[in-house]
Amino acid sequence: MQLNCDLGESFGAWSMGDDAAVMAFIDEANIACGFHAGDPLTMEKTIALAKAHDVAIGAHPAYPDLEGFGRRSMALSEQEVYSNVLYQVGALSAFCRAQGVALRYVKPHGALYHDLLIQDATFRGVVRAIADFDATLPLVILAQQNPSHWQEQAAKYGVELRFEAFADRTYEDDGRLRSRREPGAVLLEPAQIVAQALQIAQFGTVTTYSGHTIALSADTLCVHGDTPSALDAVKQIRTALDALRTSAGEGI
Amino acid sequence: MQLNCDLGESFGAWSMGDDAAVMAFIDEANIACGFHAGDPLTMEKTIALAKAHDVAIGAHPAYPDLEGFGRRSMALSEQEVYSNVLYQVGALSAFCRAQGVALRYVKPHGALYHDLLIQDATFRGVVRAIADFDATLPLVILAQQNPSHWQEQAAKYGVELRFEAFADRTYEDDGRLRSRREPGAVLLEPAQIVAQALQIAQFGTVTTYSGHTIALSADTLCVHGDTPSALDAVKQIRTALDALRTSAGEGI
Amino acid sequence: MQLNCDLGESFGAWSMGDDAAVMAFIDEANIACGFHAGDPLTMEKTIALAKAHDVAIGAHPAYPDLEGFGRRSMALSEQEVYSNVLYQVGALSAFCRAQGVALRYVKPHGALYHDLLIQDATFRGVVRAIADFDATLPLVILAQQNPSHWQEQAAKYGVELRFEAFADRTYEDDGRLRSRREPGAVLLEPAQIVAQALQIAQFGTVTTYSGHTIALSADTLCVHGDTPSALDAVKQIRTALDALRTSAGEGI
Amino acid sequence: MQLNCDLGESFGAWSMGDDAAVMAFIDEANIACGFHAGDPLTMEKTIALAKAHDVAIGAHPAYPDLEGFGRRSMALSEQEVYSNVLYQVGALSAFCRAQGVALRYVKPHGALYHDLLIQDATFRGVVRAIADFDATLPLVILAQQNPSHWQEQAAKYGVELRFEAFADRTYEDDGRLRSRREPGAVLLEPAQIVAQALQIAQFGTVTTYSGHTIALSADTLCVHGDTPSALDAVKQIRTALDALRTSAGEGI
Repeated sequence: MQLNCDLGESFGAWSMGDDAAVMAFIDEANIACGFHAGDPLTMEKTIALAKAHDVAIGAHPAYPDLEGFGRRSMALSEQEVYSNVLYQVGALSAFCRAQGVALRYVKPHGALYHDLLIQDATFRGVVRAIADFDATLPLVILAQQNPSHWQEQAAKYGVELRFEAFADRTYEDDGRLRSRREPGAVLLEPAQIVAQALQIAQFGTVTTYSGHTIALSADTLCVHGDTPSALDAVKQIRTALDALRTSAGEGI
Repeated sequence: MQLNCDLGESFGAWSMGDDAAVMAFIDEANIACGFHAGDPLTMEKTIALAKAHDVAIGAHPAYPDLEGFGRRSMALSEQEVYSNVLYQVGALSAFCRAQGVALRYVKPHGALYHDLLIQDATFRGVVRAIADFDATLPLVILAQQNPSHWQEQAAKYGVELRFEAFADRTYEDDGRLRSRREPGAVLLEPAQIVAQALQIAQFGTVTTYSGHTIALSADTLCVHGDTPSALDAVKQIRTALDALRTSAGEGI
Repeated sequence: MQLNCDLGESFGAWSMGDDAAVMAFIDEANIACGFHAGDPLTMEKTIALAKAHDVAIGAHPAYPDLEGFGRRSMALSEQEVYSNVLYQVGALSAFCRAQGVALRYVKPHGALYHDLLIQDATFRGVVRAIADFDATLPLVILAQQNPSHWQEQAAKYGVELRFEAFADRTYEDDGRLRSRREPGAVLLEPAQIVAQALQIAQFGTVTTYSGHTIALSADTLCVHGDTPSALDAVKQIRTALDALRTSAGEGI
Repeated sequence: MQLNCDLGESFGAWSMGDDAAVMAFIDEANIACGFHAGDPLTMEKTIALAKAHDVAIGAHPAYPDLEGFGRRSMALSEQEVYSNVLYQVGALSAFCRAQGVALRYVKPHGALYHDLLIQDATFRGVVRAIADFDATLPLVILAQQNPSHWQEQAAKYGVELRFEAFADRTYEDDGRLRSRREPGAVLLEPAQIVAQALQIAQFGTVTTYSGHTIALSADTLCVHGDTPSALDAVKQIRTALDALRTSAGEGI
């Protein structure tokens, strides 16, 4: 189980998050590519920071919407999604190349991340961009109860899917994230967040909002480090996962 | 002597130039990278068009100024120039990679093209971006009477310079382009344009506005194809240069 | 019956439409406000052109999407629609004020124009922006078979609706525009366009794609002048409407 | 002597400054207009906050450069400056109008603020935009030892100048701000900042970096409230100025 975090989301004079603090505790950095956040200078610095911490770098492309931080759905055609994603992945990869580090995966951001599960054309636009750029880069999407629909589509283009779960979001019984418009959508207590992270990592299950236990197979956990308590949760998850690995190792 | 042209300068719903017409007659296409022109979809189409005509592809990065078409100087620091150029070159190279064609060179656009000759920090920002992305890509700048200052700087970073002359612009005795604010800065008659192109290609000289003949060593000629008469001039230059090559070949 | 046209849709170095040609034949100019088209310099020039031809000026606000020309739906909240429309109307009105001409109405553009009929929150965002800026400015929306739903909502904020029909688009039996994805959605023959314009103006009816005649009450006809044949149709509609007015006047 | 502060400089998801905290202590709010900062929603909220605190509202227009926060000089023509400023002032004034508050003045931001003292064309562009929008709005520029050059130009267009001094910046003997590239350019100690504010307010003089006392006539003092110590200085200046007013009042 990997820990990933959205980073490099400052823009020009505006700062967001405490990248330097969280980078020390994660495995994978999803780095903004300039369309929802992340001007070129910020991209350069974030790649350098990831490199210094030996964190795997992922491209975090988005709809072209700085004002909305990429969180507002936009009606892009498949070909527009394709070319917008390819553009952003290429831009980020140039900073990787300049600093001698590899680009490891692609994880879409915000509304694009959500829309690609709803609209097959959007999904195809993203997958084709990855396939044409470098088909060995996996695409990270939300962990699903039954991901076969998306796996089949991605396989057509030779792209591997990886699945992401959230340590600090509650789940519905069908495996979807509970909407942020509902109460209890976000876990705030570090103890709860750590417990959910461990449950996903150790047992591949999650306890839903209604109290059921469902299977949820994930490769990577998304964490946030932009508040002191969030950062505290990240540190505890890191420690807990490391302990799990050690104990698994001892078992061998 | 190569013929190059600025292409891919449409944006979204706005069209500019007749890329399909001019692409058939040139050797090198300088393709906009999204900052002064060229949205991702336009970039994709322009790369495809260049590939179809077997035209060499160059990145044409600019200041981030859509409204001003990259023609307005902006006070970017060396590091801002560096990261802005690296971003754009990376974005364009992704489309090249997706279509299986090579990126061949970098030629800055508009105000950036001019400013890098005036401000060493700007020049370094561009050269370092190229060196860090792919030091085998030459940087195309305006042909100079004495280019040693820039050659020395570029050599520090292992980047080769190539020099560009203009078939349809008049020159001053010091080898500079006559300012567009002065009368006679632009040649309008195809016959004159073709004559100047041939003189540069065949003899490495140009006849200045004041009537003197000066040396001007160039590797590539910039032509424009956005008006019927401009396109007509391009065709004639193409024919004349081809004849020159044939005749040179026969001489061997 | 008024004739209106979307104008001022150039941006920076990119030209769109032949504003100078069409301005002579229309009554109302819908002028882009910078979000889908129309940089400040273009706005200034377009206002001057409208003033010179004594054409009524309307604000033509859009989603913030230059790359998509405002034609891509964006998931803006009511408050985002409100503030984005207010911003654009204010910006355009400054140019009106500077040139001593009045702003007469607001007609949303592209995807915003369509979305406000589908999403009440979007409609309210637009109407409230107008109400707060100047409640005497009417809002122009697509002519409807039964507009009472929108009239009631607009009336709550004291804003008047005006209705727009299209001379060159075909209609379905329910009064909707035939989708551009269907064959026969756009009339291309000037004779057909003029006939439909006259039918709407004289009888308040339109002959649908399937051949039925339906009532369609409109205050203004949208025309396009961006191709020679489109401009030709505009001129013929102008002549026909003027003849209608004269004949109506003679009748009195 | 008024206290002014640059506010409304958040953008979308990015926050800047603590507007709510500082608004309680100032007389005038310079509100960003969307070109260097301040999306429409932020503008709306900032106007509401200023209104709640009965703070005078000024437009704070800038070069169109979000990435550079309007701090990078851009080579705009006079007419581009004119139309860009007019656009921004109009946009901000729409929010004032919607909320029933007056727009009181215009103070350019960043590089535009500096460039208008260096380039007369830039100054004219700004002044003409104000004159054409509302000639009763004063233009706020940096306090000068000898402002007659700018006063004469502004007077041609009927625009009044007001002069701004800085409580937390040191001055050179010629009355210019000490460059931020030099040591000691910024005062950090609240006690020093308050002392300089009082000296300017009470005696119309400032003690320069080299230790001389020079005349500096200012109408308004720019303060910053974006750090705890900066906010602390603002509160102390507010108290000191209020005491000065009371004591002056008692003297009468």
